[in-house]
Amino acid sequence: MRVLGVDPGLTRCGVGVVEGAAGRPLTMRGVGVVRTPADAELGSRLVAIEAGIEHWLDEHRPEVLAVERVFSQHNVRTVMGTAQASAVAMLCASRRGIPVALHTPSEVKAAVTGSGRADKAQVGAMVTRLLRLDAPPKPADAADALALAICHIWRAPAQNRLQQAQALHARKGRTA
Amino acid sequence: MRVLGVDPGLTRCGVGVVEGAAGRPLTMRGVGVVRTPADAELGSRLVAIEAGIEHWLDEHRPEVLAVERVFSQHNVRTVMGTAQASAVAMLCASRRGIPVALHTPSEVKAAVTGSGRADKAQVGAMVTRLLRLDAPPKPADAADALALAICHIWRAPAQNRLQQAQALHARKGRTA
Repeated sequence: MRVLGVDPGLTRCGVGVVEGAAGRPLTMRGVGVVRTPADAELGSRLVAIEAGIEHWLDEHRPEVLAVERVFSQHNVRTVMGTAQASAVAMLCASRRGIPVALHTPSEVKAAVTGSGRADKAQVGAMVTRLLRLDAPPKPADAADALALAICHIWRAPAQNRLQQAQALHARKGRTA
Repeated sequence: MRVLGVDPGLTRCGVGVVEGAAGRPLTMRGVGVVRTPADAELGSRLVAIEAGIEHWLDEHRPEVLAVERVFSQHNVRTVMGTAQASAVAMLCASRRGIPVALHTPSEVKAAVTGSGRADKAQVGAMVTRLLRLDAPPKPADAADALALAICHIWRAPAQNRLQQAQALHARKGRTA
């Protein structure tokens, strides 16, 4: 499974591509940051993010886009920009028929470090180890995007089983 | 000046086109709502909103898109969807080179009713009167979109003068 992780933001949108499967070694296929100037107009920043995400989708052809689930209670000052950047990323993927998966920050931290309350340094260290990199990816947004992709690869089997069970339950309910 | 007003939302995105100039009678060119099913996946809802906004841009060729400025402190439960829907609308306009203007809810209310704290019914009544309609546009999101467009038409001259004054001041600062 090849996953494009996106850590959304208007100023820095982290992107990272990881390939692998649960229980198998992971491989990093690419990592980077889509940046837009803080003094540009909001509309043109969104257009630049769209172009950046399109480029990563063209280049890496991921099967899934994993995005951070944004909560309105976190970081009230930046949350609007985060929601807007994530909307653009989800739009780009959905337009191509690529499924979008959302993971909360604590799910991501728990997946790669074992603790939902791990700090940025710990996440960066584990991403470096799991992907056998020479150094933690910089900036932190890029490392977070890789962590999101890893989280999705590891959680997807469990999520799929849950969805199948729910679908089965719904079918049973209808035929009962 | 022809303005497409957008009252952003995932479930109901109000859209309204108004033509006119400050101090001249206003004309409604169209009003409606882009709806997406609440049980659909977020990505496909954003794709549907994009298609809806594109349709309104194709149909009415507005010179400006006026969108409600979203605040994270208002309505915490729905604010994320509002931010995401508004991002898609701004993206669609900016991609075509159409300028995007943001107005706060209280600016819009003050523009059409004289009070920044007017309620929905008062806004609907004034929109009906200003556009010489037979009845208030339904749902309220559609009326709000028209109010946004009216607000922009009336505020734009003042905003332009302010921007020109700021630009002049900046130029003077550089040459001083």
